[in-house]
Amino acid sequence: MILLKHELLKQEMQKAFSDIGLCEDSRFHAIESMVQTSLRGVDSHGINLFPHYCRAIKAGRINTNPNLQVQKSSSSVGILDSQDAIGHHAGSVAIQEAIVMAKEHGLAAVSARNSSHFGAAAYFALQAADEGMIGMSFTNADALVKATGSKKSFFGTNPICITTPLLNESAFCLDMATSLVSWNKVKNYRREDEAIPEHWAFDGEGKAVTNPHDARSLAPAGDYKGFGLGMMVDIFCAVLADGLISKDILPMFTSPIEAQRKVGHFFMVIDPEKFLPISNFKEKMQDMVDRIREMPRTDENIPVMVPGDPEKKSMEHRLVDGIPILEQVFVEYLEVSASFKNAVIS
Amino acid sequence: MILLKHELLKQEMQKAFSDIGLCEDSRFHAIESMVQTSLRGVDSHGINLFPHYCRAIKAGRINTNPNLQVQKSSSSVGILDSQDAIGHHAGSVAIQEAIVMAKEHGLAAVSARNSSHFGAAAYFALQAADEGMIGMSFTNADALVKATGSKKSFFGTNPICITTPLLNESAFCLDMATSLVSWNKVKNYRREDEAIPEHWAFDGEGKAVTNPHDARSLAPAGDYKGFGLGMMVDIFCAVLADGLISKDILPMFTSPIEAQRKVGHFFMVIDPEKFLPISNFKEKMQDMVDRIREMPRTDENIPVMVPGDPEKKSMEHRLVDGIPILEQVFVEYLEVSASFKNAVIS
Repeated sequence: MILLKHELLKQEMQKAFSDIGLCEDSRFHAIESMVQTSLRGVDSHGINLFPHYCRAIKAGRINTNPNLQVQKSSSSVGILDSQDAIGHHAGSVAIQEAIVMAKEHGLAAVSARNSSHFGAAAYFALQAADEGMIGMSFTNADALVKATGSKKSFFGTNPICITTPLLNESAFCLDMATSLVSWNKVKNYRREDEAIPEHWAFDGEGKAVTNPHDARSLAPAGDYKGFGLGMMVDIFCAVLADGLISKDILPMFTSPIEAQRKVGHFFMVIDPEKFLPISNFKEKMQDMVDRIREMPRTDENIPVMVPGDPEKKSMEHRLVDGIPILEQVFVEYLEVSASFKNAVIS
Repeated sequence: MILLKHELLKQEMQKAFSDIGLCEDSRFHAIESMVQTSLRGVDSHGINLFPHYCRAIKAGRINTNPNLQVQKSSSSVGILDSQDAIGHHAGSVAIQEAIVMAKEHGLAAVSARNSSHFGAAAYFALQAADEGMIGMSFTNADALVKATGSKKSFFGTNPICITTPLLNESAFCLDMATSLVSWNKVKNYRREDEAIPEHWAFDGEGKAVTNPHDARSLAPAGDYKGFGLGMMVDIFCAVLADGLISKDILPMFTSPIEAQRKVGHFFMVIDPEKFLPISNFKEKMQDMVDRIREMPRTDENIPVMVPGDPEKKSMEHRLVDGIPILEQVFVEYLEVSASFKNAVIS
């Protein structure tokens, strides 16, 4: 493992993205999101994706100079044609507009079609929490979760993310795929050539497998419930956004790198102040979180956590120690620019 | 099993509820909801609860003559003090107001505090679908789902329900508890004195059990993901609604029957027409549903279904054959009024 200093990494990413023509807003959001996500410990959606994004930009999958305008269709609804922008940029434009509308009307939703991979859903919903709002973000993705009763996958890992401000600490954040485990976990087992637990994944015929190399689809979280939630996410991100459903979206890594994927996102923002005074809201949230953490433990040595706690712990450590990256991924960084070695903590 | 004719059952329920002083709106929604829910095959939340509701009304847990007014705090947000009304009535007042607001502004939310058990979440969200809208309904409930990492339960089975209109058939409806299985399923195994699968429930010390009599808490759906979703539901139904969290709500059946439970609900309505023409929305939804049903089957004899399909099948059969009810439950009906025998299909 190589450790990278996050400020220096950001500087080098700025240069590299500039060199391939990515516009300022796209650079800003893609970099902020990747670094925040890796600091939070979510390695699958953070800086590991940087070399891939560079390739996608160079190949023309990603529009480097979109002109993103949310079209308002009513006081609480906005629609964004993302013009194949990098998803981090499109999503930020969308949720920022939702925040403005929610502050006035209590809640708001913005859909985004014709987008690309947007990284971690948390990056957007956390922008709403920073403004004292409840943020929700959703995205669809290529089909990877086995449909209940079928041999094949239909929905993507279609995540659900919700954030709220808290009284005494950074925001509460639940960010979860609607599959039981991520595809990345299966890939880790492939790399180590180790058997996966029996209920994680299925082969091309829908049979549960333990050999990670045979896995073709993932189990939904909580069986048909995760499948249903994946459908809810596609209703938001594909049907309401008037774009492609998961089943019709090209895979991120294995389809031609120049092909545009037309991913859809959906964002909702609720202003808690329209329901009760914001100070009461934050107190009640903090009280709930504190009470959960104080519950009797199954294992005395393992604290009871609320969603987002592991990410807060990771953030604390990685801000000091740096962000770890596999040597084989860092090689790809150096292929983009040799100056990334400046970000390595010696 | 006894079979009941649903129209006659409704008539008898009307009389019985009138006799104990339940107001007209409360009668209407409680009866419509119970019968619709049982017709849809969801026996845990339908007519089986009628004798319990009668006891709760007589004991004063339920306010028979509430004066329910949604207080609007902004153009898209409403707040309802349910005044201990029967939840079916409170929830209907709330979602109807949300429908009106969403038609104007694109989306809307209404919270309801100080309520009681509201039956099936689907009853409310389906009202929105009937108006061509996307409906979402949520409720909290007494703590029953084991907190991840703890020995004890914190959140209730806190369901999530979403509905949309379809082009060629009745509405799409996903209505799911955030626990892996319902408490009712565990109770069925108790009645039969049969072992439950190992991952369904836990004893008072948080250990997985197979003896249903030892079960004290339920597994969340998809492990910590279901726990997180249960928390999302409590953020809506307790924190935003400014009421009690699951952990502080009295159990429905085992607490003093006169004690008011102060359950919280939350409703959201989205007008798809603000995103795309309603005919396109319905077509795209229908196409998605049709494509799922046509997927290659794991078992040739078992069709691939979308959420709500089993309920549609049940509705078809039970409208003709009647609603089945256990003899021991029907005995409780007869204790309420001997004339319920008029509803029995001979």
